[in-house]
Amino acid sequence: MESLYVIKIGGNIVDNPALLTTCLEAFSKVKGQAILVHGGGKMATSMALSLGIEQTMIEGKRITDEASLKIVTMVYEGYINKNIVAQLQALGVPAVGLSGVDGNLIQAHKRNHAKIDYGFVGDIDSVNTNLLLQLLSSNTKLVVAPITHDGKGQLLNTNADTIAQSLATALATKYNVRLIYGFEKEGVLKDINEPSSVIVRMDPSIYATLKDQKIIFEGMIPKIDNAFEALDKGVASVIIGKAEKMNELVNGTAGTTITN
Amino acid sequence: MESLYVIKIGGNIVDNPALLTTCLEAFSKVKGQAILVHGGGKMATSMALSLGIEQTMIEGKRITDEASLKIVTMVYEGYINKNIVAQLQALGVPAVGLSGVDGNLIQAHKRNHAKIDYGFVGDIDSVNTNLLLQLLSSNTKLVVAPITHDGKGQLLNTNADTIAQSLATALATKYNVRLIYGFEKEGVLKDINEPSSVIVRMDPSIYATLKDQKIIFEGMIPKIDNAFEALDKGVASVIIGKAEKMNELVNGTAGTTITN
Repeated sequence: MESLYVIKIGGNIVDNPALLTTCLEAFSKVKGQAILVHGGGKMATSMALSLGIEQTMIEGKRITDEASLKIVTMVYEGYINKNIVAQLQALGVPAVGLSGVDGNLIQAHKRNHAKIDYGFVGDIDSVNTNLLLQLLSSNTKLVVAPITHDGKGQLLNTNADTIAQSLATALATKYNVRLIYGFEKEGVLKDINEPSSVIVRMDPSIYATLKDQKIIFEGMIPKIDNAFEALDKGVASVIIGKAEKMNELVNGTAGTTITN
Repeated sequence: MESLYVIKIGGNIVDNPALLTTCLEAFSKVKGQAILVHGGGKMATSMALSLGIEQTMIEGKRITDEASLKIVTMVYEGYINKNIVAQLQALGVPAVGLSGVDGNLIQAHKRNHAKIDYGFVGDIDSVNTNLLLQLLSSNTKLVVAPITHDGKGQLLNTNADTIAQSLATALATKYNVRLIYGFEKEGVLKDINEPSSVIVRMDPSIYATLKDQKIIFEGMIPKIDNAFEALDKGVASVIIGKAEKMNELVNGTAGTTITN
């Protein structure tokens, strides 16, 4: 099967123009099919502050009221997505920017949480695989913003990690999918203070041991759980590593490669 | 040849949710291929004011400095475009929202004016006809925001009337293209105070007479010149009329139909 790279870059990369350019240059050199999913970064928060719109965060998650939804839609899809696509076009990449709304790419429902009303936050129901296959078949590179919709006219703010996983799993029977999460660290580390202590390969038994030993903890656990879920759904491999080293992550010579 | 409707709706429609919904419902009923091009409306100006960014207009044209470009990109492409697409999806229309940046749909250059620096305003150089044909061939309806790019990474604010004309002419050899401009009046009027005085059909000789008689003047002249230019470039007909009557405009039972 042909390879497909689904690459997610987080908000800290989007916030740093030099780092973003490095990542986009690496993305432009990816051989084969590729989808870039980007997070939001701090611009939405700073714009909300400038407009006097208070932002409520619970456990690091934004409570997306109507005013906040308007801002994240504008910033993520209008500003960040279009600037990434313009930069990729300048690098000669035939990129098209999409949100989950476009062509019903990603349909979701408003999160239904027992205790917390997250507001207009979406949990994903379905991915329009046919649209993805159609666009990829003409060698288009896709750039996806973390905004989805409920099919009834409502936009929804949606976690970019989950979007990347959903797109990767939706295409797992058609492509040899490699899901790459670019973030600020070298990979999953044995010693959080030692960048060279990257765990190069991880499988479920290694993961269980490292969790028992409290070497892996806190924010890394949902990331890795998410990775194993993608593998269970047919994704070939998940690579977590430093976004600047996107070329090496793609080549499998940096970061932590997770397999099952 | 199959029919294609290229329909432009102006900022005054985008600013009015009830009117916008009426137009989108009409758009959802269009038989055959269709592209909707939308203007910007007043939201960009009000957002700039809220953020303390001064807006300079010369002869009704926005001078687009860097801060203003950021705002129009966010508002036109992020907010307006995605809300239109979400509404169309809710109406069962397989719509995809695009800017001129996406897939290099519309490449432009920064306006080079002898006396006025319009800032980041684009004049169109080329349209990616292949991308349009590919998307239309799968019956996708396109919703285009008035943002283009220069191919070197720079986004450009671009007139929506001109975008509609460029898309219509780019497809004129492949489709029987009808270009529809929906605005606040019933059509081109003989008496500007009398909505029932619509000039139902206009050709170059009627236009010349009406201009001589000063029946057509000011803001209507560039609109009609633009229409004749589209006809010269192969568009089958241009219809100008009241946006609320989108169904009748599409059926040719309202507005002014311009032919050459």
